[in-house]
Amino acid sequence: MRALFNPRSIALIGATDRSGWSWATFANLAPERFSGDVHLVNPRGGLVHGREVVTSVAELPDDVDLAYVMVGPGAVLDVMRQIGAKGITSAVMLTSGFGEAGPEGAALELAVLEVAREYGITILGPNGNGFANFAGGVAPYGLAIPCPPQIGGVGMVLQSGGLVSTVLDLAVARNVGVSLLTAMGNELTTTLTDVVRYMVQDEATTVIALFIESIRDTDAFRVVAKEALEAGKPLVAMKVGRSIAGARVANAHTGALVGDDGVIDAVFDQLGVIRVDSLEDLLSTAELFSSGVRFAGNRFGVVSSSGGANEIIADCVDAAGLVLPDFDQRTEDALRAFLPAFGNAHNPVDITGLSMVEDDLAERAAAVVAQDPNIDGVIYWTDLPRERPADESAHEGLVDYYARQVAAFRAAEAPVIPIGTAYTDITAYGAEVSEVTGYPGGLGGIHHGIAALGKVVRWHTQRDERLRNLSADSVVEPLRVDAEPGTSFGEYRAAELLRAQGVPMVPAGMAVSVQGAEDLAERFGYPVVVKLAADEVEHKSDIGGVRLHLNSGAEVRAAFDAVIAAGRSAGVSEPRALVQPMRSGGVELIVGVVRDPDWGLVMAVGLGGIWVEVFRDSVLHPLPTTRERVRDGLTRLRAAALLSGVRGAEPADLDAIADAAMAVADVAQRFGERLESLEINPLLVRGGSVEALDALITWR
Amino acid sequence: MRALFNPRSIALIGATDRSGWSWATFANLAPERFSGDVHLVNPRGGLVHGREVVTSVAELPDDVDLAYVMVGPGAVLDVMRQIGAKGITSAVMLTSGFGEAGPEGAALELAVLEVAREYGITILGPNGNGFANFAGGVAPYGLAIPCPPQIGGVGMVLQSGGLVSTVLDLAVARNVGVSLLTAMGNELTTTLTDVVRYMVQDEATTVIALFIESIRDTDAFRVVAKEALEAGKPLVAMKVGRSIAGARVANAHTGALVGDDGVIDAVFDQLGVIRVDSLEDLLSTAELFSSGVRFAGNRFGVVSSSGGANEIIADCVDAAGLVLPDFDQRTEDALRAFLPAFGNAHNPVDITGLSMVEDDLAERAAAVVAQDPNIDGVIYWTDLPRERPADESAHEGLVDYYARQVAAFRAAEAPVIPIGTAYTDITAYGAEVSEVTGYPGGLGGIHHGIAALGKVVRWHTQRDERLRNLSADSVVEPLRVDAEPGTSFGEYRAAELLRAQGVPMVPAGMAVSVQGAEDLAERFGYPVVVKLAADEVEHKSDIGGVRLHLNSGAEVRAAFDAVIAAGRSAGVSEPRALVQPMRSGGVELIVGVVRDPDWGLVMAVGLGGIWVEVFRDSVLHPLPTTRERVRDGLTRLRAAALLSGVRGAEPADLDAIADAAMAVADVAQRFGERLESLEINPLLVRGGSVEALDALITWR
Repeated sequence: MRALFNPRSIALIGATDRSGWSWATFANLAPERFSGDVHLVNPRGGLVHGREVVTSVAELPDDVDLAYVMVGPGAVLDVMRQIGAKGITSAVMLTSGFGEAGPEGAALELAVLEVAREYGITILGPNGNGFANFAGGVAPYGLAIPCPPQIGGVGMVLQSGGLVSTVLDLAVARNVGVSLLTAMGNELTTTLTDVVRYMVQDEATTVIALFIESIRDTDAFRVVAKEALEAGKPLVAMKVGRSIAGARVANAHTGALVGDDGVIDAVFDQLGVIRVDSLEDLLSTAELFSSGVRFAGNRFGVVSSSGGANEIIADCVDAAGLVLPDFDQRTEDALRAFLPAFGNAHNPVDITGLSMVEDDLAERAAAVVAQDPNIDGVIYWTDLPRERPADESAHEGLVDYYARQVAAFRAAEAPVIPIGTAYTDITAYGAEVSEVTGYPGGLGGIHHGIAALGKVVRWHTQRDERLRNLSADSVVEPLRVDAEPGTSFGEYRAAELLRAQGVPMVPAGMAVSVQGAEDLAERFGYPVVVKLAADEVEHKSDIGGVRLHLNSGAEVRAAFDAVIAAGRSAGVSEPRALVQPMRSGGVELIVGVVRDPDWGLVMAVGLGGIWVEVFRDSVLHPLPTTRERVRDGLTRLRAAALLSGVRGAEPADLDAIADAAMAVADVAQRFGERLESLEINPLLVRGGSVEALDALITWR
Repeated sequence: MRALFNPRSIALIGATDRSGWSWATFANLAPERFSGDVHLVNPRGGLVHGREVVTSVAELPDDVDLAYVMVGPGAVLDVMRQIGAKGITSAVMLTSGFGEAGPEGAALELAVLEVAREYGITILGPNGNGFANFAGGVAPYGLAIPCPPQIGGVGMVLQSGGLVSTVLDLAVARNVGVSLLTAMGNELTTTLTDVVRYMVQDEATTVIALFIESIRDTDAFRVVAKEALEAGKPLVAMKVGRSIAGARVANAHTGALVGDDGVIDAVFDQLGVIRVDSLEDLLSTAELFSSGVRFAGNRFGVVSSSGGANEIIADCVDAAGLVLPDFDQRTEDALRAFLPAFGNAHNPVDITGLSMVEDDLAERAAAVVAQDPNIDGVIYWTDLPRERPADESAHEGLVDYYARQVAAFRAAEAPVIPIGTAYTDITAYGAEVSEVTGYPGGLGGIHHGIAALGKVVRWHTQRDERLRNLSADSVVEPLRVDAEPGTSFGEYRAAELLRAQGVPMVPAGMAVSVQGAEDLAERFGYPVVVKLAADEVEHKSDIGGVRLHLNSGAEVRAAFDAVIAAGRSAGVSEPRALVQPMRSGGVELIVGVVRDPDWGLVMAVGLGGIWVEVFRDSVLHPLPTTRERVRDGLTRLRAAALLSGVRGAEPADLDAIADAAMAVADVAQRFGERLESLEINPLLVRGGSVEALDALITWR
């Protein structure tokens, strides 16, 4: 990767005046932008882009590090062999017409892969425009970059070539500094994960912004996400596909709880990957991370000269999971000493329009707020100027004003974050003032800026916990099961299996006679339930195979006979009956494990019973997970209030629920590849008592 | 209002070189911006802003239409009297130090109001910077407007002076055309509602953008909102205060369902006011409305040159309540005829990067998609250029390219909406291209642009229904009740009262003897419930005052004795017992009416029982409402699936529920000012059977 992204000499293979891509790449490698050598290869010879070409790869000098391949798909195999023979080990492949173009293209792609392996060539692409290493001063990139962004800590990896130009425009518009931008193309030998790993190690990159369509090697992504977390380099990801996320995982009721997109949310949350929903948020969040600012917690003071701005800020702070605590009395007293009477010394502070006359009001207020013991940072509402003032003295006044603010920020006892009003560009003049004064003007507007702030605070405060959980021991001892693929274990068999592995199942016994049924009932105590025990009958209640609320031996005997008769009518050859104590009251949860085709086993813990379909209220845990996360997840259910005990009901024992769910997670992992799905519904919670009433396991 | 906003001659009273506000206002009224006369008044005489002043209002010529008052609070009463005596009937009052500054200021404000009434002066402010009538060419406004926005159809009314400058910057940045902008100040004689009414009548204004902190006269706002709807001028409102919206309305369980902010959402929805959550959305939405585009429905085709952009668009379309239907087969065939093989002829269409070579691909694809019978409009991904190309021929090529697109949009059979990638500025060059070609480049980015599109589609498609509902007859015949303020009617009394007014209550009878209780039980049929009837005892079950599941005369008799005894122990002098049939199963709803301090009676219909506190799943209906809206609201509950019949349960009769809720709404309105709250919980729904099991009414 280091060689690929840092070539000192580049050959453009298939360079031609007739291609816009060729012109653009050549321009991006012009001497004022790239200090290394650029060679052009075209079999026809002559001049291309005003430069003498060589007619074959073989004629290139020996020091070429990177081949930028623009030949058509018909020529690409030959060219790759020549590149290999020449000893060039890195290639960017712009050429399209591979896997994206149908079966023939896919075959060609495989053939190219073989050549790459044979010669040890690292390919970026094909069907991708290349990369722009702004920090390294080299951009073998196939579209024009008329106005490069400033150099900075944001690494960008995009699985969409079509978005690169506009993302670069956005970085320029918002004055965001970029280290390396990569357009992935078809990821033949170099995957998104490979590039992320390089950026984790790259000193120029401090935060990695991703535009993701799909993650191919999920195991590798998990590993690199953990490496990024360890290195303290946040991954900020825009992952598209929320709307098309369906129920690929449709098995069991749990399937209703697990959409593909919900799995992505859960995996990202587990890995400490920050998910954003817009390009604006991608840039704002990456920019704030790259500033290096950190906060000890989520408590903020606000200083602005507008009550209206303060109200917008308060709403956004709330939505971002941040809080605006009351100030210490001394802070309010100190503010009142110099704020006008119609200002506001509470949090959020309104220094009023008087700040236009007394232009140090804002920085003084920020300094006072920053030393308040109840806050972890200061949100400071201000915009960089947009237009250069007509006269020079006004310009100098502005520069002086912003320079004084920067000095005040730096002297403050807590980080001060300037946030503008809306997501407008940092204009050329604004960027100049920012540059001259050191003013951190990158954070875009209240709406997107405070959303970014919330994500930054959350990432820093949760990082240790995420790392601890990801490092938890996840080796499990496999558990052999004798079951046909595609079959299910219902009720009794599933219950026996799970009970043996420590899952708290409600007691149950199998009866083959009236007397046996009554004995079991006496042992469990009344009331009891008698059910037909037959995995092959799906809807037992519909055929009279379930009898509830049985309060005496007589009732149990009658129920046994009825249930057995129902079984016979349904064609069960030797029907038996299951006897269980009858439970009522309490809260019904569901604990289900399903297999996501990309991310493997995922456990859902949520509100059970009929509420599964109605509210889809669950928290997902990609496995392995930790007891700590499962317990915490219970408090994040929308129905969490139910577990705290509504209207005087006994509060549920969250530890006992987490223990039960962890027992389920453990056994699911031990079943390993054999498991298709495992579902406990309901898991009945009555205060400290947690019991699984029913279970279903499906085998692969 | 027309006189206030269209003065031909303005006097700046208290003009002085020492005030930035005075300088700014004077500059905003410079001859190149304002064609009328400007006079300066300063008691000291001499030159101000380089102009001769008069020393008193009396010396002003007689044709002054508007006084812009900048004197201090101490002088303001005198000045207002002089203005009145001079016959000037409009004033903008910049002066602060009134209601916002404490009791003394509030008294001064009242005194000014008296003078204003005496002389018939319309005041904008005080404590406000004034207005900028861009369409009318007059901006008596107290802060510098260095760069005015283009003139257009967006009227803006802001209840925050501090935000005006940045909102204007935003309008310039996004090339949004503005008609009139008003900063409201303290709304002494001119309210937000007054200005909105003026804009509804103002020909230059086609859409009204509001920044609202609080609406003072809610009745007047309701009226003007309906007028706006009738005039076809959308109100787009950013209403702050979501985070501080608490439970001012705390009475009854319904209080848990009704936050202030939820009431605002419900009122705005009822009135057809579009609520947005960010300044970016406020501008984008207003801009799209002002373009005049309309759609017959919410089905869109997408044309872009990026699969990545298409995925973002698909996610945003989904979130905005729009859909991307499949195309007609003929559309796909027509697209395939000219799209590259690796493109995508399905919706959303990917014309691929080949569009860089064949630069008419996009407009051809848009034209084909626009004639598909399954779509109501086309989303067309494209950005205006940001930087002027180095050579003139490239510039001409760009202008030609955008002009051809404009021609293609206009010829298309459905509206084509160009949407850029992100919320970047329309640069000066972009605005020039837009101006020269007629290109509608205002809509900001996929994220905010498609959110705006969703709101525009929704407003147009729902307008008739909103108007119909707002025009529904709401006169009710008052219902006299004999009840002490602050008291409540529980169970029996409430039930009798409501039953008499057509609310479907479960049958009930009052028993004073064992025999009476048994007779009632026989009449209702078993099982029955026997409860202590005593409004003064709050938690009857806690003292043994409620007996459920009674299946025989013997059980009823025993229960009656027990309940009566419990009543005596609780200090009830002549305890009686209520007998009701016992219901079980079904879905429990809540129908509650509470009084919002601003907006009056609001009805909540939601999931009842213990779920009220757990999920707060309800839809609010400010009263009066219509049966149509109440029925529709049931389908918008998160628990709507429960009413459709989960796992084979009988679907609920939504008409019967709506009838019951409308009966509650009707009686609540008939109680009028006497009603504090009225709650039915639960309203038990079992298929077609809808019965209120319990009711509580609290009186004011």
